[in-house]
Amino acid sequence: MSRILRAGLVQQSCGADREKNLQASTAGIREAVARGAQLVLLQELHTGPYFCQHESTALFDLAESIPGPSTEYLGALAKELGVVIVGSLFEKRALGLYHNTAVVLERDGTLAGKYRKMHIPDDPGYYEKFYFTPGDAGTGVAGTPGDLGFTPIQTSVGKLGLLVCWDQWYPEAARLMALAGAELLLYPTAIGWNRADDAAEQARQREAWITIQRGHAVANGLPVLVANRIGFEPDPSGQTQGAQFWGSSFVAGPQGEFLGQAGGEGAEVLVVDVDLERSENVRRWWPFLRDRRIDAYGELVRRFRD
Amino acid sequence: MSRILRAGLVQQSCGADREKNLQASTAGIREAVARGAQLVLLQELHTGPYFCQHESTALFDLAESIPGPSTEYLGALAKELGVVIVGSLFEKRALGLYHNTAVVLERDGTLAGKYRKMHIPDDPGYYEKFYFTPGDAGTGVAGTPGDLGFTPIQTSVGKLGLLVCWDQWYPEAARLMALAGAELLLYPTAIGWNRADDAAEQARQREAWITIQRGHAVANGLPVLVANRIGFEPDPSGQTQGAQFWGSSFVAGPQGEFLGQAGGEGAEVLVVDVDLERSENVRRWWPFLRDRRIDAYGELVRRFRD
Repeated sequence: MSRILRAGLVQQSCGADREKNLQASTAGIREAVARGAQLVLLQELHTGPYFCQHESTALFDLAESIPGPSTEYLGALAKELGVVIVGSLFEKRALGLYHNTAVVLERDGTLAGKYRKMHIPDDPGYYEKFYFTPGDAGTGVAGTPGDLGFTPIQTSVGKLGLLVCWDQWYPEAARLMALAGAELLLYPTAIGWNRADDAAEQARQREAWITIQRGHAVANGLPVLVANRIGFEPDPSGQTQGAQFWGSSFVAGPQGEFLGQAGGEGAEVLVVDVDLERSENVRRWWPFLRDRRIDAYGELVRRFRD
Repeated sequence: MSRILRAGLVQQSCGADREKNLQASTAGIREAVARGAQLVLLQELHTGPYFCQHESTALFDLAESIPGPSTEYLGALAKELGVVIVGSLFEKRALGLYHNTAVVLERDGTLAGKYRKMHIPDDPGYYEKFYFTPGDAGTGVAGTPGDLGFTPIQTSVGKLGLLVCWDQWYPEAARLMALAGAELLLYPTAIGWNRADDAAEQARQREAWITIQRGHAVANGLPVLVANRIGFEPDPSGQTQGAQFWGSSFVAGPQGEFLGQAGGEGAEVLVVDVDLERSENVRRWWPFLRDRRIDAYGELVRRFRD
């Protein structure tokens, strides 16, 4: 028994020209579909440079509504190609209220759902707290008003546990998606090195990033798909030495095993077969959900146990 | 700035003779101390074979009280050598009430604390639910009656987040220990392969086991120490082909990086320097605790979100 989902990941660099970036994504999506992909995952904020390297009020001009230009464009493409597309954009929800939002376009072109990044980073070169309001906590019940938070998105290719970048460091996010029936975890990402760090530190960071996400696959017995950008982007403010995005997009199976991995430097379209039936088998051997100590987990909602 | 803790892990095989097993552990502890270890971690249920391969009421005779023979023996050794020892035993708490319990002996020989395994597995060859009552949920406040659950143990070498084997698959357990101020996570373990599985499956299992625990190090920015047994132990009931314990004891730093790793087959004393100050630095770069969405984690105490 197997239930194969062929998934495509587009790993690309992004420059200042939105149209060129979209063309590169489009070419990647078309290639993935030509190679049989039924689902394509784009990286985080794929229409432009990673603009959060500095804080500038002018950059809120980059934000768009949902529905809006990106969802219309990706929706038309999804419909033309008959593929489910996961995109990422800077969302303007209201005046003074912006999110880092991932969107899912169904193969008929409709918006299957969206996810607003819940965990927002803020460190030198990644000033996201300036731009992005954290996603609403949500009701946890899909299809109701305010249903966002950690809510999977139902699509024709499965129930997607869509999260974004910094969320990938939080086992809680992965677990909540799994508990809500997600069949896959997906992480559009933009993560890179500070050139001031030495090679050993850079290697530890990349490996930590891969390891923790493979760990989410293991803990929850489901596949994980991660698309990260590549290329060097200078810091417009000159405060840091800029960001060298490390690519390394990958797909892991429900035991955390690598099903496919892209390189760290070049543009790449990774196409991987994921057997969704395998999660069933793995969870029979290792039924972690069976033994969770929900009677003893109450303190997880505390900031610290002091 | 650095604050080095030299830690020793004893990886050994165990036969039917309790005294011989204890002698092997003792030799490992003495060697680790001779090499400068201030803390020594033994594997799970190190005084005998992994008896849970079958269910037999006669085996409850193996259980002991706390304090009892194991804590007295290890306490005397800890005092003699001036080292903190983490052991593991089959605890008889009351008639018909048994636990899989890890104990910490302070370097003055006193019992610094104990931890009763919270997550109890049960699959062919690992019939632990027959023998072990899951640990109490606990109050979460160390030093109060019923303070077990996920409560770290304060020692002269740091606050130990002591967990046991199957707990290692649960990010919740690691997080709760970190939230309670644990400086290290420690996992006495007995995990092996079923010989009926092919080499690829065996490799995936071992790698999953390593990956998820390195993931706990990353998620919580603290070092992880894991001691696992080695050797083949037949299944007395003949139901399975027995267990081939895979060793591979290791120590990971707060970015999940390997600080040391034992082999998969032979007895070994692994001695590794862990810089506890490094957790401070790593958590400044990657302050995951800062951004936890405790307002949106409430559903973690549900079995499933259906």
